[in-house]
Amino acid sequence: MPRISTKGQNMPESPIRKLVPYAEAAVNQGKKVFYLNIGQPDIRSPHEALDAVKNADIEVIEYSHSAGIESYRRGLASYYQGVGIDVDYTDILVTTGGSEALLMGFMSCLDEGDEVIIPEPFYANYNGFAQAAGVKVVPVTAKIETGFALPPIADIENLITDKTKAILICNPGNPTGYLYNAEELETLRQIVAQHDLFLFADEVYREFVYDNKEHNSVMNLKGIEQNVVLVDSVSKRYSMCGARVGALVSHNKELIATALKFAQARLSPPTLAQIAAEGALNTPQSYFDEVIGEYVERRDLLVDKLNEIEGVICPKPSGAFYCVAELPVEDAEKFCQWMLESFDLDGDTVMMAPAAGFYSDPELGKRQVRIAYVLDKERLARATECLDAGLKVYPGRLELV
Amino acid sequence: MPRISTKGQNMPESPIRKLVPYAEAAVNQGKKVFYLNIGQPDIRSPHEALDAVKNADIEVIEYSHSAGIESYRRGLASYYQGVGIDVDYTDILVTTGGSEALLMGFMSCLDEGDEVIIPEPFYANYNGFAQAAGVKVVPVTAKIETGFALPPIADIENLITDKTKAILICNPGNPTGYLYNAEELETLRQIVAQHDLFLFADEVYREFVYDNKEHNSVMNLKGIEQNVVLVDSVSKRYSMCGARVGALVSHNKELIATALKFAQARLSPPTLAQIAAEGALNTPQSYFDEVIGEYVERRDLLVDKLNEIEGVICPKPSGAFYCVAELPVEDAEKFCQWMLESFDLDGDTVMMAPAAGFYSDPELGKRQVRIAYVLDKERLARATECLDAGLKVYPGRLELV
Repeated sequence: MPRISTKGQNMPESPIRKLVPYAEAAVNQGKKVFYLNIGQPDIRSPHEALDAVKNADIEVIEYSHSAGIESYRRGLASYYQGVGIDVDYTDILVTTGGSEALLMGFMSCLDEGDEVIIPEPFYANYNGFAQAAGVKVVPVTAKIETGFALPPIADIENLITDKTKAILICNPGNPTGYLYNAEELETLRQIVAQHDLFLFADEVYREFVYDNKEHNSVMNLKGIEQNVVLVDSVSKRYSMCGARVGALVSHNKELIATALKFAQARLSPPTLAQIAAEGALNTPQSYFDEVIGEYVERRDLLVDKLNEIEGVICPKPSGAFYCVAELPVEDAEKFCQWMLESFDLDGDTVMMAPAAGFYSDPELGKRQVRIAYVLDKERLARATECLDAGLKVYPGRLELV
Repeated sequence: MPRISTKGQNMPESPIRKLVPYAEAAVNQGKKVFYLNIGQPDIRSPHEALDAVKNADIEVIEYSHSAGIESYRRGLASYYQGVGIDVDYTDILVTTGGSEALLMGFMSCLDEGDEVIIPEPFYANYNGFAQAAGVKVVPVTAKIETGFALPPIADIENLITDKTKAILICNPGNPTGYLYNAEELETLRQIVAQHDLFLFADEVYREFVYDNKEHNSVMNLKGIEQNVVLVDSVSKRYSMCGARVGALVSHNKELIATALKFAQARLSPPTLAQIAAEGALNTPQSYFDEVIGEYVERRDLLVDKLNEIEGVICPKPSGAFYCVAELPVEDAEKFCQWMLESFDLDGDTVMMAPAAGFYSDPELGKRQVRIAYVLDKERLARATECLDAGLKVYPGRLELV
């Protein structure tokens, strides 16, 4: 039997899936599990998207252009104009989800062994794309004490070697929900300009910004237009995670032309989903107002309740629909497993994502969990009750001074 | 401005796109162009597929399982059973097209610098996936004189080094339409068993087999069950190229588990398209009978007419919907460009794919073109008239003895 590749052997497993067997066992035992471990919102997709597919008058599901359906790309360009990002449709490559945008971006910009600096905790699948592209992730640690703000400029610059080709941020962030402010983006701009790096920004949560704060896109940073690569997706914006439609956006024509070669090899992004995504461009503002109102209420309820639990610390994030909380336990993964295996509150329990997997050094996030507020307020309230009750009786609870 | 990657710079461009600007210019000049250069059939998708999407009762376009929707995987397993391939749904990973299946297969089995032997001429995008995965393609040349049969066993074994990890075939083949017979598969079985290689087979044209011949799947080769990796897709089978639903199939559990890690990083294949593909499983045999009847008539018309043209040689293939023809010209790419730029027959002309791009050494295919019979018989007949007339007046025509 031939050996599978070293690349495959070293491919990291997603940390949010590790506990799935325990959750399944809990359900089989008759427990009700509140799933706060995943990024799949319960929000309905806009009917404009669903109707576009239902009403599409097609006889053959044909390849689209490798860069995406032109009318959709033009529509996307208008969308970006509407959120203050000045791009032309030729700056946009439609991809199969944000995932493919990042993978193609990595492959177009970084060679085997090149390094990308990423503030951690970060979206764990970045590790997978880096492994697939042969790229080395160099983390710079953001601290829960500062609410996961961008680490100091010196911390980042200390990590730059002659192998460093890029910095990657997620803004607002998964898993932290942290929203970078204008000063932080200026810091990044300076570093990128000085060292001539690529700046990748995953802005798929752009719409989910709260407390009247503003989203600052990397696409608007002056003087580094050729360095900036935007990774985007309709997954979260329109609650269409399964569509698999994303975009790679850059003013750097050479980069777009290079990524297009990778895009041509895979022929076409999914056509039906592009039809849905083009339909979704007609989603009225009222949809977003409603969704954002809902997320703010959920966030406030969740984060307030978490901080009321003795020993729990959870910064209140300004974006996305995640938060990272520190628990009074030595090993959050063991605790999350215990919550599924050995605990229930009148039959109910909760599944969270241990945050260790969002750090390059798992020790750093060992006491933390990521909680996604993808369930309604009633369920969220009940889930926090379960967490509170679980922590009270958990044998491994830390006695904090 | 930061440099794009060497990997990106070296990423090959698709040979079927090189002439697109000339075709666009021809259309702008008012010419009618018959497009025989692409693999996008004009055949309608089964209404079972289209209806499944139209009638899907979903409120949220959610992620599916990373390995695909379970009911679809189970349905696919039944489909394979029906075509004599004995697999369980856990042997199947649903992918975003056959493209992703091959890329994930390469990444799971081959490391940077490992070699894969591929009979040429081969589907040009294999070069792209190899480049993306850092894998080296080692071609073994099939000859037009033998109708593109599998090269002799010695030719293949001579190429095996300690870096060789796999052989990749396409059966029936793109661009040749060649269908491997049982003896050829036995040859491959022996080489693979002796050298403990992976055997990848792209069988996306499985249904398109003519003249009462039988398709022999690599999945039925005895003794190398752990070596065999099937790459499949709904694109051609149901004329759903734009769906982007494929599959990676293997009895090798370690390989499937490894590929699943790559699949988890990109979260999910497209959900709407999987719904269409699951609907397509209900396509009645009459659909295929009709389509195959049509393709046989087109092939016979096309290949007969091609061979009637003085100086043109075209083996009659037994599968897929392509053929490779040798033309009485020194450089088929220049000729194809000339047909678009400088020739028309009462306003009509034809676009073909120069075959050089389907060989590792372009010199080998310099006089050949790939012709896809993706247009109806009337159009095909007119296209061959254009080709005949063009060859008669082409200034670079070779005088063959």
